[in-house]
Amino acid sequence: MKKMVLSLLVDNTSGVLARVAGLFSRRGYNIDSLTVGITEDPKFSRMTVAVSGDDLILSQIKKQLLKLEDVKTITELKGGESVVRELMLVKILTDMTERQQIISLANVFRAQVVDVSADSVMIEMTGNTNKIEAFIKLLDGFRISEMVRTGLTGLTRTAGE
Amino acid sequence: MKKMVLSLLVDNTSGVLARVAGLFSRRGYNIDSLTVGITEDPKFSRMTVAVSGDDLILSQIKKQLLKLEDVKTITELKGGESVVRELMLVKILTDMTERQQIISLANVFRAQVVDVSADSVMIEMTGNTNKIEAFIKLLDGFRISEMVRTGLTGLTRTAGE
Repeated sequence: MKKMVLSLLVDNTSGVLARVAGLFSRRGYNIDSLTVGITEDPKFSRMTVAVSGDDLILSQIKKQLLKLEDVKTITELKGGESVVRELMLVKILTDMTERQQIISLANVFRAQVVDVSADSVMIEMTGNTNKIEAFIKLLDGFRISEMVRTGLTGLTRTAGE
Repeated sequence: MKKMVLSLLVDNTSGVLARVAGLFSRRGYNIDSLTVGITEDPKFSRMTVAVSGDDLILSQIKKQLLKLEDVKTITELKGGESVVRELMLVKILTDMTERQQIISLANVFRAQVVDVSADSVMIEMTGNTNKIEAFIKLLDGFRISEMVRTGLTGLTRTAGE
């Protein structure tokens, strides 16, 4: 199983997400994450889809997506050639000692403390998947009450001269 | 037109995104952004959907979503009671003077410079929509070549005692 991150420029219509999601669902392709939001041009949205599968499936996914009329361009965001990031928010239940430990961990990862209450702390963190998962691993043993991740988004780096 | 941000806990199946997107598309509801990614429990995904419409449409959307079997819980992320964030990457074409100006702007907004080439710079920024849009406004006059936004994600704050 390989992982692939695709950046799609698509028409900004109410049906485009249903058509893309329908394609994945009908064929049983596995979506690890998906984000869709506005771009610099209101006519288009940019969709970032992280998928996993073997080489054959990954090449089929690209071909099938290109057949959709709403899909204007597809770029594969490859490691090294692109900047790929995700955003995570995590709420952890804490007593006072744990709170201090978690804030220290957050500082090491340059994560932000965005909310503190008497018995919980919320951390915001941005990074590539490795960084996010390393942080989650360190939270093992603490009491995670809720976690949300945007899924991956990214842009290609400019090729050097 | 009001805006509403919904956080959905859904079954982690290949069809759930197609069913949610299909519901919006069939009824012509407008999705401003959508993110879906894994949670602390592999059985579930968390989907964050930003929608706009009048009061009637917004209440219909909630009712219709709750009818879907895959949708376990729906939480509305309201301003003040929640932390709502998005992540943006933007690539800007620059000469040397512009590059310095953009890096200074990024510092003011605590945004990160994530890639620099001879004729471009890429900035990563996290914040609520107001902060992101204020930064984009300041970039007016510079040459934005590509921009991608994850769309909103968020968690409710813990209620104070």
